[in-house]
Amino acid sequence: MANGGPEIEQLIQLLARLPGLGPRSARRAVLHLIKRKDALMVPLSAALDRAVAAVRVCETCGNVDTVSPCHICTDPRREQSGLLIVVEDVADLWALERAGVGAVRYHVLGGVLSPLDGIGPEDLTIEQLLGRAAGFSEIVLAVNATVEGQTTAHYITDRLAGSGVRITRLAHGVPVGGELDYLDEGTLSQALRARTAMDPG
Amino acid sequence: MANGGPEIEQLIQLLARLPGLGPRSARRAVLHLIKRKDALMVPLSAALDRAVAAVRVCETCGNVDTVSPCHICTDPRREQSGLLIVVEDVADLWALERAGVGAVRYHVLGGVLSPLDGIGPEDLTIEQLLGRAAGFSEIVLAVNATVEGQTTAHYITDRLAGSGVRITRLAHGVPVGGELDYLDEGTLSQALRARTAMDPG
Ligand SMILES: [Zn+2]
Ligand SMILES: [Zn+2]
Repeated sequence: MANGGPEIEQLIQLLARLPGLGPRSARRAVLHLIKRKDALMVPLSAALDRAVAAVRVCETCGNVDTVSPCHICTDPRREQSGLLIVVEDVADLWALERAGVGAVRYHVLGGVLSPLDGIGPEDLTIEQLLGRAAGFSEIVLAVNATVEGQTTAHYITDRLAGSGVRITRLAHGVPVGGELDYLDEGTLSQALRARTAMDPG
Repeated sequence: MANGGPEIEQLIQLLARLPGLGPRSARRAVLHLIKRKDALMVPLSAALDRAVAAVRVCETCGNVDTVSPCHICTDPRREQSGLLIVVEDVADLWALERAGVGAVRYHVLGGVLSPLDGIGPEDLTIEQLLGRAAGFSEIVLAVNATVEGQTTAHYITDRLAGSGVRITRLAHGVPVGGELDYLDEGTLSQALRARTAMDPG
Protein backbone atom coordinates (compact mmCIF):
# COMPACT_ATOMS: atom_id res chain seq x y z
CA MET A 1 0.00 0.00 0.00
CA ALA A 2 2.46 2.60 -1.21
CA ASN A 3 -0.05 5.25 -2.24
CA GLY A 4 -0.64 6.81 1.13
CA GLY A 5 -2.52 4.22 3.13
CA PRO A 6 -5.88 2.43 2.90
CA GLU A 7 -8.08 5.52 3.39
CA ILE A 8 -6.51 7.28 0.41
CA GLU A 9 -6.43 4.12 -1.71
CA GLN A 10 -10.13 3.49 -1.09
CA LEU A 11 -11.00 7.07 -1.98
CA ILE A 12 -9.08 6.70 -5.26
CA GLN A 13 -10.87 3.45 -6.09
CA LEU A 14 -14.32 4.94 -5.48
CA LEU A 15 -13.61 8.13 -7.45
CA ALA A 16 -12.29 6.00 -10.32
CA ARG A 17 -15.82 4.60 -10.72
CA LEU A 18 -17.23 8.00 -11.69
CA PRO A 19 -17.91 8.53 -15.40
CA GLY A 20 -15.04 10.37 -17.06
CA LEU A 21 -12.52 9.40 -14.38
CA GLY A 22 -10.21 6.38 -14.42
CA PRO A 23 -7.56 5.21 -11.96
CA ARG A 24 -5.04 7.80 -13.15
CA SER A 25 -7.36 10.80 -13.08
CA ALA A 26 -8.82 9.60 -9.77
CA ARG A 27 -5.32 9.67 -8.25
CA ARG A 28 -4.82 13.19 -9.61
CA ALA A 29 -8.20 14.22 -8.23
CA VAL A 30 -7.34 12.87 -4.77
CA LEU A 31 -4.00 14.67 -4.72
CA HIS A 32 -5.78 17.83 -5.85
CA LEU A 33 -8.23 17.40 -2.97
CA ILE A 34 -5.49 16.77 -0.42
CA LYS A 35 -3.55 19.86 -1.51
CA ARG A 36 -6.73 21.92 -1.08
CA LYS A 37 -7.93 20.18 2.04
CA ASP A 38 -9.65 23.15 3.68
CA ALA A 39 -10.74 24.90 0.48
CA LEU A 40 -12.09 21.87 -1.37
CA MET A 41 -11.78 18.47 0.30
CA VAL A 42 -13.59 19.38 3.52
CA PRO A 43 -16.40 21.28 1.70
CA LEU A 44 -16.80 18.42 -0.78
CA SER A 45 -17.02 15.90 2.05
CA ALA A 46 -19.68 18.00 3.77
CA ALA A 47 -21.60 18.57 0.51
CA LEU A 48 -21.61 14.84 -0.19
CA ASP A 49 -22.88 14.10 3.32
CA ARG A 50 -25.67 16.64 2.87
CA ALA A 51 -26.59 15.35 -0.58
CA VAL A 52 -26.70 11.73 0.63
CA ALA A 53 -29.11 12.77 3.35
CA ALA A 54 -31.22 15.05 1.17
CA VAL A 55 -31.54 13.44 -2.26
CA ARG A 56 -34.95 12.08 -3.29
CA VAL A 57 -36.32 10.72 -6.55
CA CYS A 58 -39.63 12.45 -7.33
CA GLU A 59 -42.48 9.95 -7.05
CA THR A 60 -44.41 11.83 -9.73
CA CYS A 61 -41.92 12.57 -12.51
CA GLY A 62 -38.67 10.73 -11.65
CA ASN A 63 -36.63 13.94 -11.29
CA VAL A 64 -33.90 14.07 -8.67
CA ASP A 65 -34.49 16.67 -5.98
CA THR A 66 -34.47 17.06 -2.21
CA VAL A 67 -38.25 16.82 -1.94
CA SER A 68 -40.84 14.49 -3.47
CA PRO A 69 -42.90 15.56 -5.37
CA CYS A 70 -40.10 17.73 -6.73
CA HIS A 71 -40.00 21.50 -7.05
CA ILE A 72 -40.94 21.29 -10.72
CA CYS A 73 -43.98 19.12 -10.07
CA THR A 74 -45.27 21.47 -7.36
CA ASP A 75 -44.39 24.76 -9.10
CA PRO A 76 -47.75 26.55 -9.56
CA ARG A 77 -46.41 28.41 -12.62
CA ARG A 78 -46.05 25.08 -14.41
CA GLU A 79 -49.73 24.34 -14.78
CA GLN A 80 -50.85 20.75 -14.95
CA SER A 81 -52.79 21.60 -18.15
CA GLY A 82 -49.73 22.55 -20.22
CA LEU A 83 -46.82 20.69 -21.75
CA LEU A 84 -45.46 17.41 -20.41
CA ILE A 85 -41.97 16.70 -21.72
CA VAL A 86 -40.95 13.04 -21.66
CA VAL A 87 -37.20 12.41 -21.34
CA GLU A 88 -35.05 9.34 -20.99
CA ASP A 89 -32.93 10.54 -18.13
CA VAL A 90 -32.67 13.19 -15.41
CA ALA A 91 -29.63 14.59 -17.24
CA ASP A 92 -31.92 15.42 -20.18
CA LEU A 93 -34.42 17.13 -17.88
CA TRP A 94 -31.61 19.25 -16.46
CA ALA A 95 -30.38 20.09 -19.96
CA LEU A 96 -33.87 21.29 -20.98
CA GLU A 97 -34.17 23.35 -17.80
CA ARG A 98 -30.81 24.97 -18.52
CA ALA A 99 -32.11 25.76 -22.01
CA GLY A 100 -34.98 27.66 -20.36
CA VAL A 101 -37.74 25.90 -22.28
CA GLY A 102 -40.45 27.48 -20.14
CA ALA A 103 -43.21 26.52 -17.74
CA VAL A 104 -43.33 22.82 -18.55
CA ARG A 105 -43.41 19.61 -16.55
CA TYR A 106 -41.43 16.46 -17.16
CA HIS A 107 -41.61 12.70 -17.07
CA VAL A 108 -38.38 10.73 -16.71
CA LEU A 109 -38.63 7.32 -18.37
CA GLY A 110 -35.49 5.95 -16.75
CA GLY A 111 -34.12 4.66 -20.06
CA VAL A 112 -35.38 3.45 -23.42
CA LEU A 113 -36.83 0.23 -24.76
CA SER A 114 -34.01 -2.09 -25.77
CA PRO A 115 -34.99 -5.71 -26.41
CA LEU A 116 -31.33 -6.68 -26.91
CA ASP A 117 -30.54 -5.47 -23.39
CA GLY A 118 -33.73 -7.01 -22.03
CA ILE A 119 -35.29 -3.63 -21.27
CA GLY A 120 -39.05 -3.71 -21.82
CA PRO A 121 -41.89 -1.28 -21.02
CA GLU A 122 -42.15 -2.60 -17.47
CA ASP A 123 -38.56 -1.50 -16.79
CA LEU A 124 -39.43 2.11 -17.61
CA THR A 125 -41.98 4.47 -16.06
CA ILE A 126 -44.38 4.12 -18.99
CA GLU A 127 -47.40 3.01 -16.92
CA GLN A 128 -46.95 6.05 -14.69
CA LEU A 129 -46.75 8.22 -17.80
CA LEU A 130 -50.04 6.79 -19.10
CA GLY A 131 -51.57 7.61 -15.75
CA ARG A 132 -50.45 11.26 -15.92
CA ALA A 133 -51.07 11.91 -19.59
CA ALA A 134 -54.73 12.97 -19.38
CA GLY A 135 -53.82 15.95 -17.22
CA PHE A 136 -51.86 17.63 -20.01
CA SER A 137 -52.77 19.23 -23.31
CA GLU A 138 -49.64 18.05 -25.08
CA ILE A 139 -46.95 15.46 -24.54
CA VAL A 140 -43.54 16.09 -26.12
CA LEU A 141 -41.48 12.93 -26.56
CA ALA A 142 -38.00 14.42 -26.08
CA VAL A 143 -36.10 11.16 -26.34
CA ASN A 144 -32.68 10.84 -27.93
CA ALA A 145 -32.49 10.59 -31.72
CA THR A 146 -31.25 7.03 -31.50
CA VAL A 147 -32.93 3.87 -32.78
CA GLU A 148 -33.97 2.89 -29.25
CA GLY A 149 -35.19 6.40 -28.50
CA GLN A 150 -37.37 6.51 -31.59
CA THR A 151 -38.67 2.98 -30.94
CA THR A 152 -39.64 4.09 -27.47
CA ALA A 153 -41.37 7.20 -28.85
CA HIS A 154 -43.45 5.10 -31.24
CA TYR A 155 -44.35 2.63 -28.51
CA ILE A 156 -45.57 5.45 -26.25
CA THR A 157 -47.49 7.04 -29.14
CA ASP A 158 -49.27 3.73 -29.75
CA ARG A 159 -50.14 3.34 -26.08
CA LEU A 160 -51.56 6.89 -25.98
CA ALA A 161 -53.61 6.47 -29.15
CA GLY A 162 -57.22 7.46 -28.46
CA SER A 163 -56.37 9.43 -25.34
CA GLY A 164 -57.05 12.69 -27.13
CA VAL A 165 -53.77 14.14 -25.95
CA ARG A 166 -51.65 15.82 -28.61
CA ILE A 167 -48.32 14.00 -28.96
CA THR A 168 -45.30 15.68 -30.48
CA ARG A 169 -41.60 15.12 -30.73
CA LEU A 170 -38.62 17.44 -30.88
CA ALA A 171 -37.93 18.97 -34.27
CA HIS A 172 -35.13 17.66 -36.36
CA GLY A 173 -32.20 19.73 -35.48
CA VAL A 174 -31.24 17.17 -32.90
CA PRO A 175 -28.37 15.47 -34.73
CA VAL A 176 -29.02 11.85 -35.65
CA GLY A 177 -27.40 9.69 -33.00
CA GLY A 178 -26.97 12.73 -30.76
CA GLU A 179 -27.62 12.82 -27.04
CA LEU A 180 -29.56 15.74 -25.62
CA ASP A 181 -27.22 16.26 -22.73
CA TYR A 182 -24.38 17.20 -25.10
CA LEU A 183 -26.35 19.75 -27.14
CA ASP A 184 -25.95 23.47 -26.80
CA GLU A 185 -28.88 25.33 -25.31
CA GLY A 186 -29.80 27.23 -28.48
CA THR A 187 -30.21 24.02 -30.44
CA LEU A 188 -32.37 22.54 -27.71
CA SER A 189 -34.63 25.61 -27.55
CA GLN A 190 -35.04 25.68 -31.33
CA ALA A 191 -35.79 21.98 -31.48
CA LEU A 192 -38.54 22.40 -28.91
CA ARG A 193 -40.10 25.43 -30.63
CA ALA A 194 -40.19 23.58 -33.98
CA ARG A 195 -41.57 20.35 -32.51
CA THR A 196 -43.70 18.24 -34.89
CA ALA A 197 -46.67 15.90 -34.43
CA MET A 198 -45.99 12.18 -34.05
CA ASP A 199 -47.43 10.15 -36.94
CA PRO A 200 -49.71 7.43 -35.60
CA GLY A 201 -47.97 4.02 -35.91
CA MET B 1 -32.40 26.25 -8.87
CA ALA B 2 -33.80 23.79 -11.36
CA ASN B 3 -31.10 21.15 -11.04
CA GLY B 4 -32.41 19.39 -7.99
CA GLY B 5 -31.97 21.87 -5.18
CA PRO B 6 -29.05 23.61 -3.47
CA GLU B 7 -27.46 20.47 -1.99
CA ILE B 8 -27.13 18.87 -5.42
CA GLU B 9 -26.07 22.11 -7.11
CA GLN B 10 -23.32 22.65 -4.54
CA LEU B 11 -22.06 19.11 -4.98
CA ILE B 12 -21.89 19.65 -8.75
CA GLN B 13 -19.98 22.90 -8.32
CA LEU B 14 -17.41 21.34 -5.98
CA LEU B 15 -16.88 18.26 -8.17
CA ALA B 16 -16.45 20.54 -11.20
CA ARG B 17 -13.31 21.91 -9.54
CA LEU B 18 -11.53 18.54 -9.73
CA PRO B 19 -8.94 18.18 -12.49
CA GLY B 20 -10.40 16.41 -15.52
CA LEU B 21 -14.00 17.33 -14.62
CA GLY B 22 -15.96 20.38 -15.77
CA PRO B 23 -19.54 21.48 -15.09
CA ARG B 24 -20.96 19.01 -17.59
CA SER B 25 -19.03 15.97 -16.43
CA ALA B 26 -19.62 16.98 -12.80
CA ARG B 27 -23.38 16.88 -13.44
CA ARG B 28 -23.01 13.44 -15.02
CA ALA B 29 -20.93 12.29 -12.06
CA VAL B 30 -23.54 13.50 -9.57
CA LEU B 31 -26.37 11.75 -11.42
CA HIS B 32 -24.22 8.62 -11.57
CA LEU B 33 -23.74 8.87 -7.80
CA ILE B 34 -27.44 9.43 -7.13
CA LYS B 35 -28.43 6.44 -9.24
CA ARG B 36 -25.96 4.32 -7.27
CA LYS B 37 -26.67 5.87 -3.90
CA ASP B 38 -26.09 2.79 -1.72
CA ALA B 39 -23.41 1.19 -3.89
CA LEU B 40 -21.31 4.28 -4.58
CA MET B 41 -22.53 7.61 -3.17
CA VAL B 42 -22.74 6.50 0.48
CA PRO B 43 -19.37 4.66 0.40
CA LEU B 44 -17.73 7.63 -1.33
CA SER B 45 -19.12 10.00 1.28
CA ALA B 46 -17.78 7.77 4.06
CA ALA B 47 -14.40 7.35 2.36
CA LEU B 48 -14.06 11.11 1.97
CA ASP B 49 -14.93 11.65 5.63
CA ARG B 50 -12.30 9.11 6.65
CA ALA B 51 -9.67 10.56 4.33
CA VAL B 52 -10.31 14.11 5.56
CA ALA B 53 -9.75 12.90 9.12
CA ALA B 54 -6.74 10.71 8.33
CA VAL B 55 -4.66 12.49 5.68
CA ARG B 56 -1.27 13.92 6.71
CA VAL B 57 1.57 15.46 4.75
CA CYS B 58 4.83 13.78 5.81
CA GLU B 59 6.97 16.31 7.71
CA THR B 60 10.11 14.60 6.43
CA CYS B 61 9.56 13.99 2.72
CA GLY B 62 6.30 15.73 1.75
CA ASN B 63 4.53 12.48 0.82
CA VAL B 64 0.81 12.19 1.54
CA ASP B 65 -0.07 9.46 4.02
CA THR B 66 -2.12 8.87 7.15
CA VAL B 67 0.91 9.12 9.43
CA SER B 68 3.83 11.54 9.64
CA PRO B 69 6.62 10.61 9.15
CA CYS B 70 5.08 8.49 6.38
CA HIS B 71 5.32 4.72 5.92
CA ILE B 72 8.08 5.15 3.35
CA CYS B 73 10.21 7.31 5.65
CA THR B 74 9.90 4.82 8.52
CA ASP B 75 10.23 1.64 6.44
CA PRO B 76 13.37 -0.09 7.82
CA ARG B 77 13.97 -1.78 4.47
CA ARG B 78 14.51 1.63 2.89
CA GLU B 79 17.75 2.46 4.62
CA GLN B 80 18.68 6.05 5.22
CA SER B 81 22.06 5.37 3.55
CA GLY B 82 20.65 4.53 0.10
CA LEU B 83 19.00 6.45 -2.69
CA LEU B 84 17.00 9.63 -2.19
CA ILE B 85 14.78 10.38 -5.19
CA VAL B 86 13.73 14.02 -5.54
CA VAL B 87 10.39 14.58 -7.29
CA GLU B 88 8.26 17.63 -8.05
CA ASP B 89 4.99 16.24 -6.84
CA VAL B 90 3.42 13.44 -4.80
CA ALA B 91 1.92 12.10 -8.05
CA ASP B 92 5.48 11.46 -9.31
CA LEU B 93 6.35 9.64 -6.06
CA TRP B 94 3.31 7.41 -6.50
CA ALA B 95 4.22 6.76 -10.15
CA LEU B 96 7.74 5.64 -9.15
CA GLU B 97 6.32 3.42 -6.40
CA ARG B 98 3.96 1.80 -8.91
CA ALA B 99 6.99 1.25 -11.16
CA GLY B 100 8.59 -0.71 -8.30
CA VAL B 101 11.86 1.22 -8.28
CA GLY B 102 13.02 -0.48 -5.11
CA ALA B 103 13.99 0.35 -1.53
CA VAL B 104 14.41 4.10 -1.98
CA ARG B 105 13.26 7.19 -0.15
CA TYR B 106 11.83 10.36 -1.62
CA HIS B 107 11.79 14.11 -1.29
CA VAL B 108 8.80 16.02 -2.68
CA LEU B 109 9.77 19.54 -3.79
CA GLY B 110 6.19 20.75 -4.11
CA GLY B 111 6.80 22.23 -7.56
CA VAL B 112 9.63 23.66 -9.66
CA LEU B 113 11.43 26.97 -9.83
CA SER B 114 9.53 29.32 -12.11
CA PRO B 115 10.55 32.99 -11.93
CA LEU B 116 7.73 33.96 -14.32
CA ASP B 117 5.19 32.53 -11.87
CA GLY B 118 7.03 34.02 -8.91
CA ILE B 119 8.08 30.60 -7.58
CA GLY B 120 11.50 30.77 -5.97
CA PRO B 121 13.56 28.32 -3.85
CA GLU B 122 11.78 29.44 -0.67
CA ASP B 123 8.44 28.24 -2.11
CA LEU B 124 9.79 24.70 -2.48
CA THR B 125 11.18 22.27 0.11
CA ILE B 126 14.78 22.84 -1.03
CA GLU B 127 16.12 23.83 2.41
CA GLN B 128 14.65 20.67 3.90
CA LEU B 129 16.29 18.68 1.09
CA LEU B 130 19.70 20.22 1.87
CA GLY B 131 19.19 19.22 5.49
CA ARG B 132 18.48 15.58 4.58
CA ALA B 133 21.04 15.15 1.81
CA ALA B 134 24.03 14.12 3.96
CA GLY B 135 22.21 11.00 5.11
CA PHE B 136 22.17 9.46 1.63
CA SER B 137 24.77 8.07 -0.73
CA GLU B 138 23.08 9.32 -3.89
CA ILE B 139 20.41 11.86 -4.79
CA VAL B 140 18.45 11.28 -8.01
CA LEU B 141 16.83 14.44 -9.36
CA ALA B 142 13.72 12.88 -10.92
CA VAL B 143 12.15 16.15 -12.03
CA ASN B 144 10.20 16.51 -15.24
CA ALA B 145 12.13 17.00 -18.48
CA THR B 146 10.82 20.55 -18.81
CA VAL B 147 12.77 23.81 -18.82
CA GLU B 148 11.62 24.57 -15.27
CA GLY B 149 12.39 21.02 -14.14
CA GLN B 150 15.91 21.15 -15.51
CA THR B 151 16.48 24.65 -14.09
CA THR B 152 15.41 23.32 -10.69
CA ALA B 153 17.74 20.32 -11.05
CA HIS B 154 20.69 22.60 -11.83
CA TYR B 155 19.87 24.88 -8.91
CA ILE B 156 19.78 21.94 -6.48
CA THR B 157 23.01 20.54 -7.92
CA ASP B 158 24.70 23.91 -7.31
CA ARG B 159 23.42 24.10 -3.75
CA LEU B 160 24.68 20.56 -3.03
CA ALA B 161 28.13 21.19 -4.51
CA GLY B 162 30.82 20.21 -1.99
CA SER B 163 28.47 18.01 0.05
CA GLY B 164 30.16 14.88 -1.25
CA VAL B 165 26.82 13.32 -2.14
CA ARG B 166 26.57 11.80 -5.63
CA ILE B 167 23.89 13.60 -7.67
CA THR B 168 22.27 11.99 -10.71
CA ARG B 169 19.23 12.46 -12.90
CA LEU B 170 16.94 10.07 -14.78
CA ALA B 171 18.19 8.83 -18.15
CA HIS B 172 16.62 10.31 -21.23
CA GLY B 173 15.54 7.87 -23.89
CA VAL B 174 12.85 6.07 -25.76
CA PRO B 175 9.93 5.11 -23.47
CA VAL B 176 9.33 1.37 -23.16
CA GLY B 177 6.79 0.56 -25.84
CA GLY B 178 7.34 3.96 -27.42
CA GLU B 179 7.42 4.43 -31.18
CA LEU B 180 10.31 6.45 -32.53
CA ASP B 181 8.04 8.15 -35.04
CA TYR B 182 6.10 9.84 -32.23
CA LEU B 183 9.08 11.05 -30.21
CA ASP B 184 10.37 14.59 -30.32
CA GLU B 185 13.80 15.16 -31.79
CA GLY B 186 15.42 16.11 -28.49
CA THR B 187 14.48 12.78 -26.97
CA LEU B 188 15.68 10.89 -30.03
CA SER B 189 19.06 12.58 -30.14
CA GLN B 190 19.55 12.10 -26.38
CA ALA B 191 18.58 8.44 -26.73
CA LEU B 192 21.16 8.03 -29.50
CA ARG B 193 23.92 9.74 -27.52
CA ALA B 194 23.19 7.54 -24.47
CA ARG B 195 22.97 4.32 -26.48
CA THR B 196 23.99 1.13 -24.67
CA ALA B 197 25.46 -2.18 -25.82
CA MET B 198 23.11 -4.98 -26.74
CA ASP B 199 23.35 -7.91 -24.38
CA PRO B 200 24.44 -10.99 -26.36
CA GLY B 201 21.35 -13.13 -26.90
ZN1 LIG C 1 -41.31 15.76 -10.07
ZN1 LIG D 1 7.83 10.63 4.29
